[in-house]
Amino acid sequence: MSAAARARRLDERAEIVVLERGAHVSFANCGLPYFVGGEIADESSLLVQTPSSLRAALALDVRTGHDVLGLDITRRVVSVRTIDGDYEIAYDDLILAPGARSVRPPIPGLDSPRVRTLRSVDDATSLRRTVDRGIRRAVVLGAGFIGIEAAEVLARRGLAVSLVDVASHPLPPLERELAAVVTAELRALGVDLHLGVAADAIEQHDEEDVVILSDGARLAADLVVLSVGVRPDTEVFEAAGVGCERGAIIVDGHGRTTVPNVWAVGDAVLSVDGVTGARRPIALAGPANRAGRLVADAIFRPEHARMLPAPTGTAIVRVGDQVAALTGANRQALDAAEVDYVTLHLHPNQHAGYFPGATQVHLVVHAATSNGRLLGAQAVGRDGVDKRIDVLATAIRAGLSVEDLIDLDLAYSPPFGQAKDPVNLTGMLGENVRTGALRLWYADELAAVLDRALLLDVRTAAEVAAGAVRGAMHIPHTELRGRIEEVRSAAGGRPIRVMCQSGVRSAIAHRVLAQEGFDSASLSGGMLTLRAWWGGEASEILERPEAMQHA
Amino acid sequence: MSAAARARRLDERAEIVVLERGAHVSFANCGLPYFVGGEIADESSLLVQTPSSLRAALALDVRTGHDVLGLDITRRVVSVRTIDGDYEIAYDDLILAPGARSVRPPIPGLDSPRVRTLRSVDDATSLRRTVDRGIRRAVVLGAGFIGIEAAEVLARRGLAVSLVDVASHPLPPLERELAAVVTAELRALGVDLHLGVAADAIEQHDEEDVVILSDGARLAADLVVLSVGVRPDTEVFEAAGVGCERGAIIVDGHGRTTVPNVWAVGDAVLSVDGVTGARRPIALAGPANRAGRLVADAIFRPEHARMLPAPTGTAIVRVGDQVAALTGANRQALDAAEVDYVTLHLHPNQHAGYFPGATQVHLVVHAATSNGRLLGAQAVGRDGVDKRIDVLATAIRAGLSVEDLIDLDLAYSPPFGQAKDPVNLTGMLGENVRTGALRLWYADELAAVLDRALLLDVRTAAEVAAGAVRGAMHIPHTELRGRIEEVRSAAGGRPIRVMCQSGVRSAIAHRVLAQEGFDSASLSGGMLTLRAWWGGEASEILERPEAMQHA
Repeated sequence: MSAAARARRLDERAEIVVLERGAHVSFANCGLPYFVGGEIADESSLLVQTPSSLRAALALDVRTGHDVLGLDITRRVVSVRTIDGDYEIAYDDLILAPGARSVRPPIPGLDSPRVRTLRSVDDATSLRRTVDRGIRRAVVLGAGFIGIEAAEVLARRGLAVSLVDVASHPLPPLERELAAVVTAELRALGVDLHLGVAADAIEQHDEEDVVILSDGARLAADLVVLSVGVRPDTEVFEAAGVGCERGAIIVDGHGRTTVPNVWAVGDAVLSVDGVTGARRPIALAGPANRAGRLVADAIFRPEHARMLPAPTGTAIVRVGDQVAALTGANRQALDAAEVDYVTLHLHPNQHAGYFPGATQVHLVVHAATSNGRLLGAQAVGRDGVDKRIDVLATAIRAGLSVEDLIDLDLAYSPPFGQAKDPVNLTGMLGENVRTGALRLWYADELAAVLDRALLLDVRTAAEVAAGAVRGAMHIPHTELRGRIEEVRSAAGGRPIRVMCQSGVRSAIAHRVLAQEGFDSASLSGGMLTLRAWWGGEASEILERPEAMQHA
Repeated sequence: MSAAARARRLDERAEIVVLERGAHVSFANCGLPYFVGGEIADESSLLVQTPSSLRAALALDVRTGHDVLGLDITRRVVSVRTIDGDYEIAYDDLILAPGARSVRPPIPGLDSPRVRTLRSVDDATSLRRTVDRGIRRAVVLGAGFIGIEAAEVLARRGLAVSLVDVASHPLPPLERELAAVVTAELRALGVDLHLGVAADAIEQHDEEDVVILSDGARLAADLVVLSVGVRPDTEVFEAAGVGCERGAIIVDGHGRTTVPNVWAVGDAVLSVDGVTGARRPIALAGPANRAGRLVADAIFRPEHARMLPAPTGTAIVRVGDQVAALTGANRQALDAAEVDYVTLHLHPNQHAGYFPGATQVHLVVHAATSNGRLLGAQAVGRDGVDKRIDVLATAIRAGLSVEDLIDLDLAYSPPFGQAKDPVNLTGMLGENVRTGALRLWYADELAAVLDRALLLDVRTAAEVAAGAVRGAMHIPHTELRGRIEEVRSAAGGRPIRVMCQSGVRSAIAHRVLAQEGFDSASLSGGMLTLRAWWGGEASEILERPEAMQHA
């Protein structure tokens, strides 16, 4: 619809026909879970435009209930099926925007009427009616963005919700140490998590379905929401000769497919990641909307057509009172692409700590080792997460380095930020690491550190009493200068690995130790990141782990 | 304190002495109004660090109650006065961070004990005690950021507050059409506004002071808050030979003054605007903090010292339920610098319109006519203002063009944004204007438009009934294509100037008209901007202005 609307604005005389298989165009896809949950009250709110409003405003010929059966690239015709019969329609230019359909894994029993997806207005209205009937138990298969949203809204509606994913944590694109916050929040919402397991089968009974998991668990369900991902809905076009790669349509920088006068945009299209070179479809609303506009430009005013940008993949999800967001590449993508990078962990407040309502934003940022270029960023927190990820997404798009973040003049007054905003702090931390003023060690190295180094915890006695790593030496950072000889003696020539709660005080301690000549490093993200990283395994490495869970 | 803390982190062996005239260091300047208002409950919250905490963590020698009386740049000594007597202290390097003091205009009676400023912790505690005593009436002189904050918190405390400024609208750096929202919100808070007038005198009586304004008004006051601006507090250093321009210390890109081994940072320093070349001090916390760190780098590890960036001047203020923020240059600064620019007005929702809580962000963005480079941006609204200004500040710092904003992948899900974020929409609008797909006219041209063109209002009949410009022709945009001949006939060869509510539908109508061959243009920001621009004068140009005020 973005392409069609843009086309009309550029050309009053073009004949513009939109073919849509379903009953609706321009509906609020991303609002569907919130309609099921009741936050969006009326179905009509989901219908952003209708065929008649589009005809009135933009003279568009929108034909719903039109299923495209075939494409003849030689004769330049599309064949469509309608309730009134089949026909052909000719084109000068054709824009393919078929989107994606839900992946349906080969699970016996998946054909149960209790198994639903959440892709269309009809899906959403049907799901809401089902929930309104007063069912009690839902199983959500897939803990990606849609699965998380579905689990959240169903839990808010009072259902007993189980959430299942083969990945070891919810929101698999999120880094492990941030996902811990999402896991905790889902549990706080009452969601029963089954991670690292697959659904093997769905037994259909009269009164209920039972989802059988690979670990043997049996989950009774009145409703099963299938949200294990999507794949491009391109069979018709691939069969007609449009070049695809693993089902995704191949396009050039202007949205041209391999077939003359055939263009493609949206979830069905192959994107090439600007950072990692990874080739995959990106199912996100923003890039799809903007690509539609750009393709219309390429057709109707090629002299002004701009290139489709490589997607940054920015995404966000609300989970209870928490928000998780990410942009750019994550650790897994960078490792796969064999990029050398440094990772930064921060836990600053979203606004001045002395102003009411201050809460932490948990940040993970990756920057290239070679030149400091920002590669990816993720954040979790109650407030201010979207702002920091949007700023970082802008910085990544602009090709800024982590050091450039120091210089950003961001809006500050106590209700809105800090004089050193979390984004500025990220820049300062990155500069310290890249210039050697700071050396980091990471939570995943803990076993090796305990084996070969002196672990020095520089938090206060009260913090240590509430949970600490077994075997660590404790000296508050304010006492360190006076107790250097104790450290030297305890280390006995071993390296010192420092830690505190969030990584700020351990960085100060590291500076003291490094200038004393020690082989020293500071734990990235401190105890907050360490605890999140180790999660369920924390009890083996921590003293008083029970106390820590409530710290 | 940023410079001192950074210096210690870089060098354990340096002797680092901090001289402070007052009783506190590292206090929460920006939180003072909120302490007066009671949102920040405890005075202790304002003290971010103390001399003893700084000694413990960073081995800093912080000497409060030390007033610098002189500087001998030849002998490299500073002379200080303390309660215990005067002495001299030698330096290898000296960092000047004296800040600014309140401007005290030559108003008779300004020496009244009822006249207060709001610069120090002592100011704030004294003000709060005064308010707690149950006084009823306050006059705030100066409607800049601090004046607005003071007026807001005093009004929230239940005082009858009058706010006085010589400028024609509150927050003078804000564009006139955005200031209208701030004006309305201040009135909603019960603040009595006196704009375009000066305070001529303050009469001191036993029971009250009376502020006499240049228009003859007499404002009885139990308290007068003086917030008409600040000026660099640099007399001692200028007298010692440190080069200044209109009182502001001249520094190079690393913070060096004109005197060897003397550096300067913060509100006392002259900044050169990166966009306009304007030379002035910038009294903002963020840049000051970061400059302190950079100067310490320049002294202690010059091999890694980065240049001080030209300030973008990003600032934000909460006013009741509204937020106003700005970054980069405004219209006045661009006009003074004789820069050619295009101005864009938008009123998009901060998040998906179908999601509960959607409210408008009113945006004004300036971009260079020549190459589209972003020059400045301002926004007012209830929610999402800080995020958009931070993204735009980042884009300005990165040197992006308005068209580059189209491509930003910003975090979208219905609670957090739109598939086409307000920032993306700004880019699309700017591209349309710069490529000629859209031609704008502006609210200030209304009289000329009514004189020489056909004004075509393409809003719905219901919107027109709630207030419209006298003499406009009304055709809803959805009917325009079928009624072109009516327009042609009414225009009689005159140009057509189109308007709608926010500028979206008039842009569609403009495309229809332009392709029909008309000399057409679309009102930037629509009726929302027109009404805000004309404000109190609206009644002369609008039908049913009363209805409009409540629209």
